[in-house]
Amino acid sequence: LNEDSPLDEESIIKLLWGRFGKNSANDPFDDDAAWVLNSNKKFVVGKADMLVATTDAPVQMTPSQIARKSIVACVSDLAAKGVKPEYCLISLGLPRELATRKYVIDLARGFASAESEYRLRIIGGDTNATSRDPVIDCSIFGFANSLVLRRGAKPGDLIGVSGKFGIQQAGLLLLLNKAKSSDQSFSKAAIDSVLEPNARLDLGLRVSRYLSSCIDSSDGLAISLYHLAESSKVSFDLHDLPIHSGVSNFAKENGLVDSELVLFGGEEYELVCTYSSDHESDLKKLGVNTIGTVKESRNRRYQVRLNGRLVTRRGWLHFKSDD
Amino acid sequence: LNEDSPLDEESIIKLLWGRFGKNSANDPFDDDAAWVLNSNKKFVVGKADMLVATTDAPVQMTPSQIARKSIVACVSDLAAKGVKPEYCLISLGLPRELATRKYVIDLARGFASAESEYRLRIIGGDTNATSRDPVIDCSIFGFANSLVLRRGAKPGDLIGVSGKFGIQQAGLLLLLNKAKSSDQSFSKAAIDSVLEPNARLDLGLRVSRYLSSCIDSSDGLAISLYHLAESSKVSFDLHDLPIHSGVSNFAKENGLVDSELVLFGGEEYELVCTYSSDHESDLKKLGVNTIGTVKESRNRRYQVRLNGRLVTRRGWLHFKSDD
Repeated sequence: LNEDSPLDEESIIKLLWGRFGKNSANDPFDDDAAWVLNSNKKFVVGKADMLVATTDAPVQMTPSQIARKSIVACVSDLAAKGVKPEYCLISLGLPRELATRKYVIDLARGFASAESEYRLRIIGGDTNATSRDPVIDCSIFGFANSLVLRRGAKPGDLIGVSGKFGIQQAGLLLLLNKAKSSDQSFSKAAIDSVLEPNARLDLGLRVSRYLSSCIDSSDGLAISLYHLAESSKVSFDLHDLPIHSGVSNFAKENGLVDSELVLFGGEEYELVCTYSSDHESDLKKLGVNTIGTVKESRNRRYQVRLNGRLVTRRGWLHFKSDD
Repeated sequence: LNEDSPLDEESIIKLLWGRFGKNSANDPFDDDAAWVLNSNKKFVVGKADMLVATTDAPVQMTPSQIARKSIVACVSDLAAKGVKPEYCLISLGLPRELATRKYVIDLARGFASAESEYRLRIIGGDTNATSRDPVIDCSIFGFANSLVLRRGAKPGDLIGVSGKFGIQQAGLLLLLNKAKSSDQSFSKAAIDSVLEPNARLDLGLRVSRYLSSCIDSSDGLAISLYHLAESSKVSFDLHDLPIHSGVSNFAKENGLVDSELVLFGGEEYELVCTYSSDHESDLKKLGVNTIGTVKESRNRRYQVRLNGRLVTRRGWLHFKSDD
């Protein structure tokens, strides 16, 4: 690998993390959020999420939707850890031509909406000028007595997800004019799911006590399952795919494969988790449905299989060539 | 003012703050850092600082220096409040062509250096792709039993600063090839002061108990004095300018006015503060020198005067036309 060839996001994180932060007990980039134990044995949990409108947001997103989503993404990661988001800092970088009263008021509307929906407090922030990219960085801190990590899945545990998948990917394809749908109500729901996503905060806080591991699915279902399996050093056998209604028809209509929309989407802010079978019925009542079982890994290979077939380890990573 | 005309940074902040964060007791954008009182009556203090390399960093800055400076700027704000920085999140946005092993390792070196110099813990972060701007957003949280705010200056207090001013502005002009210096050692010191600035953390923590108000001077000495005066609803009479040695010669050599370099610079991470005269000698020993006296304001006009002459209320703000 050449010194000057572009890196993907995972490689950047590995390089950075090898060189600072070594005083922390844990590798913070190995989970959805970072944490340390403070002197009162409480977890201080922090999460930053940088949204770059030029690369992360479909052109149809309004400034208000972009602002709201920047907070949703961050809240979703804390939700997966069972941590209530408390204090939020917002840094805003705007190119000169966007730094208008109209644009800023619309951004503020989105921040205010997320602040109220997720009952957190935006306590401050920073603004700066960029030359082209509108950038929103949201940092949220919370405190917790316990955390649900990625690394707690045990062989025999069940694997579950909140919600159904594939509709966001359909929505994105519709927004990008790369697909069509004759089902108007599906089409609207799909587009809304991209423009106005919701973090599973209430659910995350309610179910955390039952979970042995959890991650949010924002990078895609397949890669999220792999992250859980790898951190926990186990393999996953799936017997079911959580396909959102309408996705199979949408796929057929566009010559796509529905399971790919489900597995390799992203921007779904659902919970992907594992738990002892003792908790299955409690979790089902709360909206977490079982899709598989945790298995021992063989030869240190942490695999995700669907009905016996290996699922490609692929997600949606920045800095990689478009796919 | 047109809905679509560009706003300066202060206007953006006012617009944003009018629309969210209203649950906080204080306007967090009215001080160097944001804070809330937690249930243990401790202040939770947060500061975010977004550095945009394309607009904030002279081209001569190495990635390591840019990374280090992004943390220095944030630490400096907490130092002015007398708060020890504890937990840091770093968000990194890089255009594809800069996301190389070489660049990222150099950035990591700078982050690691600041982490060790200021004894804080980088606990996590985020990476993302931008289309053009390299962006580093640093968020730091700390905890404190008391805070030095901008708004505590009382008539009769003295006004003091750590360090001397004007050398950073000289350094910036040298780096931008807008000035020359025949004094090699001044030249080197000036350039170093821009490329490798230092936050006054130890000093800030040591002197906070003596201070009635404090701000860091990163936006320039004049505007920092105005911010203190306005937040405290007082006026300032300066009898002295803290001119860095060599700055007067440099100004002469380049047909510039030395007091302007001192007052309207920026990127100096010094403390600008007020205190009762009882503490003057203690503070002098620690390196804080008196430059003026706090006066009552007349007719709600909060003015800064130097030897009787009004100092222009001017700093260095993003989004304004270049000056």
